[in-house]
Amino acid sequence: MAYEIYWISGSPYAWSVMLAMEVKGLTYESRLLDRTKDEHKAPEFLAINPRGLVPVLKSGDTVICEAIAILAYLDKKHPEPPIFGTTPEETGLIWQLVSEVDGYIRGPLGDGITAPIFRGKAKEGEGADAVRAARGPAHEALNWVNDKLKGSRFLAGDAISASDIVLLPVIQALARAAGKDVAASLDLCILPLDDTYPNIARWLTRIQAVPGYENTYPPHWRG
Amino acid sequence: MAYEIYWISGSPYAWSVMLAMEVKGLTYESRLLDRTKDEHKAPEFLAINPRGLVPVLKSGDTVICEAIAILAYLDKKHPEPPIFGTTPEETGLIWQLVSEVDGYIRGPLGDGITAPIFRGKAKEGEGADAVRAARGPAHEALNWVNDKLKGSRFLAGDAISASDIVLLPVIQALARAAGKDVAASLDLCILPLDDTYPNIARWLTRIQAVPGYENTYPPHWRG
Repeated sequence: MAYEIYWISGSPYAWSVMLAMEVKGLTYESRLLDRTKDEHKAPEFLAINPRGLVPVLKSGDTVICEAIAILAYLDKKHPEPPIFGTTPEETGLIWQLVSEVDGYIRGPLGDGITAPIFRGKAKEGEGADAVRAARGPAHEALNWVNDKLKGSRFLAGDAISASDIVLLPVIQALARAAGKDVAASLDLCILPLDDTYPNIARWLTRIQAVPGYENTYPPHWRG
Repeated sequence: MAYEIYWISGSPYAWSVMLAMEVKGLTYESRLLDRTKDEHKAPEFLAINPRGLVPVLKSGDTVICEAIAILAYLDKKHPEPPIFGTTPEETGLIWQLVSEVDGYIRGPLGDGITAPIFRGKAKEGEGADAVRAARGPAHEALNWVNDKLKGSRFLAGDAISASDIVLLPVIQALARAAGKDVAASLDLCILPLDDTYPNIARWLTRIQAVPGYENTYPPHWRG
């Protein structure tokens, strides 16, 4: 059965799943939900995922929710190219990186910097100081990523893996947030990535070169 | 090389890993760290995991941190019995459940109820009201688990899987917290599980019957 992917433009979790589909060269039907119309809380979608969350992968009677579960499913169903490695040691390393991105990187970057800027909570007197206080942990997280990419094309080695796929939307959202007008007075010192975190900048270029990457880019970011 | 597991008594993440070792019938050398002596922040351990977190699995030069990564590694290295299923559909379902336990169950039960009781933050005037406010989401989480176990021996079907292994310490810690003296005036309505959540109670009995389960039980809970 054809794959259907339910997603919302800009959802980092949905972005990861779509990027995994492109890495594996899989085709899918796009089921883009409009968050501004609460389509992810509509009865039709709640019948598919009662939590009202994207992404969801559907294929006939198979319905899988939660991004990491979809990545694991896809890798088992379509092993080439592998995104969780082939040896146990590679698998362990990649899942460790996925867990670290989720547990120690997503928070400082996403919750600390990106989310307040995207949600209009970064203006002077209305959250700017909280974002400034978040810069330290954010740079610690970015340094960790940049160090991991020293002398390595991707996080887990020479091949793209689930860890890169999970990290990509977090970094792209951060870079977009850091480029907003409101960020100018926050002294984030994040952009340009070529100067601040050159390994991350080169890694971004490599992922952007994945055939089909453009299909995964949030449509509402192009406006 | 022999497996070494670095752990702390009562760490739910470490407990999961040790339970997985027992389910797979693997032997390991116990490296129990004493949290009261900050052994997890000692230079010897930070050399193994710079984050100072348990569990860590070590085997010769292979070092894997993060519980889900260790589970994935073990399943790839020792496929029988599988804890992430055998078909792609089973793998997807089990990882979905692991992600749901981690994202929607651990917080309401662990952060909402267990942690404040264990940390002495549940006394009247010192956190009791916050714990009372957490009862609603906790029962919602318990109902979700209880429903998943309706007519099913384990979360993902008839065989124990990583999802049960990840959930077990969360439920055991909750039950222990709910049995503390301080909980008596909190009207938690969690115990006895046989009455409140009979499917969960029966599931607990099944996991306790795993050969070697006793080896995973937190030693400081026996005192």
